[in-house]
Amino acid sequence: MLANQIEIQVKEKNGSLVDFIINLQRYAVAGQMFSDITHELNNIVGAMLGFAQIAKMTNKENDIKKCFEVIISCSEKAKQINNSMLSYLQANSKDEREADINTIIYQSISLANKGFYRKGIKVSFLPGSIPIIKLRIGLFQHAFLNFLLDVKKNISNGKELKITTEHNEKEKQIEINLRNSTFLADCRTRAERLESFQDIFNSFENPDGLNKDINVRIASWIVNKEIGGEVLNSGEEKVTGYKIKIPV
Amino acid sequence: MLANQIEIQVKEKNGSLVDFIINLQRYAVAGQMFSDITHELNNIVGAMLGFAQIAKMTNKENDIKKCFEVIISCSEKAKQINNSMLSYLQANSKDEREADINTIIYQSISLANKGFYRKGIKVSFLPGSIPIIKLRIGLFQHAFLNFLLDVKKNISNGKELKITTEHNEKEKQIEINLRNSTFLADCRTRAERLESFQDIFNSFENPDGLNKDINVRIASWIVNKEIGGEVLNSGEEKVTGYKIKIPV
Repeated sequence: MLANQIEIQVKEKNGSLVDFIINLQRYAVAGQMFSDITHELNNIVGAMLGFAQIAKMTNKENDIKKCFEVIISCSEKAKQINNSMLSYLQANSKDEREADINTIIYQSISLANKGFYRKGIKVSFLPGSIPIIKLRIGLFQHAFLNFLLDVKKNISNGKELKITTEHNEKEKQIEINLRNSTFLADCRTRAERLESFQDIFNSFENPDGLNKDINVRIASWIVNKEIGGEVLNSGEEKVTGYKIKIPV
Repeated sequence: MLANQIEIQVKEKNGSLVDFIINLQRYAVAGQMFSDITHELNNIVGAMLGFAQIAKMTNKENDIKKCFEVIISCSEKAKQINNSMLSYLQANSKDEREADINTIIYQSISLANKGFYRKGIKVSFLPGSIPIIKLRIGLFQHAFLNFLLDVKKNISNGKELKITTEHNEKEKQIEINLRNSTFLADCRTRAERLESFQDIFNSFENPDGLNKDINVRIASWIVNKEIGGEVLNSGEEKVTGYKIKIPV
């Protein structure tokens, strides 16, 4: 067993390596967003510092009042970012609860938004009228953030990402669309290569080591196996759009 | 291959799964600290908000001046935390550079300190006179933060964690000690179970799924294989102290 080659056998039922990697990857997603969020917080704190310094130098009562207003509104903005992050990190990822997917998407966008902003990408979200469903909220947000971060990585600077939700009553599902502005065709190709966790393991055989689609692979696996949904992608070489279907 | 049992073969030389897990775990460490750091930032921002609101209500010039001073010093504290985090996340973990280990430890403590503070644990660091060495800084900090987080998890509330560094000229190594106040005996037991990355994989066979020592196992592996050092632990059932030896 201490030879060059290590053989690992993971029982799919037991799934401990799978659980480990998914749990690790959830924190890693937070770590990856941390960089962008920290930059955003630095900007906010920088503004507060600037206005406090201006207020210190002036004697005009009105100017001082204005500076306080800015500092107070900055504080509230910073607290909102912090609280979104805490609620993501503290959610028990397997707990199933009644949830409004629109709210989860809104919160996820607010977490990832700083990264898009830095690339000059505009994110627009048009929430549809969708029913409240029972959902593993933590896992869903984990998966959704992975899709967002993947689109962010693959979308060109200055483009637009349009996110919509809709309720398909006939097929009894909620459909979530992530599309960039140049991706006009409907998502029709089932993301076949993302079906099984085994694909994720297989990709480690890649001589480059890390497989670049690893986040999306894990996210699709969560949607398929843990949420019972389905993921479609653009079918193009460079993935820049997703349609996620969640059963109602 | 789509049977119940998945067989994964990872070539130790190629090591892509190892690289993947180490890289993922590095971001996960950041994610784990994020929760504590976000609480700390929330406190700082809360203080800024409070003083801005007080200043808004008063007309006494002196009180207003004092509030500005608090807001400015809070801003600087928040920026320092943010910048420590950014430098950890943005470091290329494999780049080898000349480094002062005392500085890296100091920065790591400042990142993890919020978590200790919340458990009422005092962390004291007495930096010794040690030489500057060529080191993979990102990997070393990754490993060191893992040891810190492990001690934090296993140390009782209200205890003290003492960290020291010293230069052992005879054995040509830098020794870093992490000890809690009840851990009096010297670290003499080599952490044998932490020698190989294979142990980490084997631990997934554990019916509980996640192995609780996983952070320490990965950290020891990094010190052994990537830094060329050695890790000793207390040899007690519950690990609450470490001695890390880095060759000079």
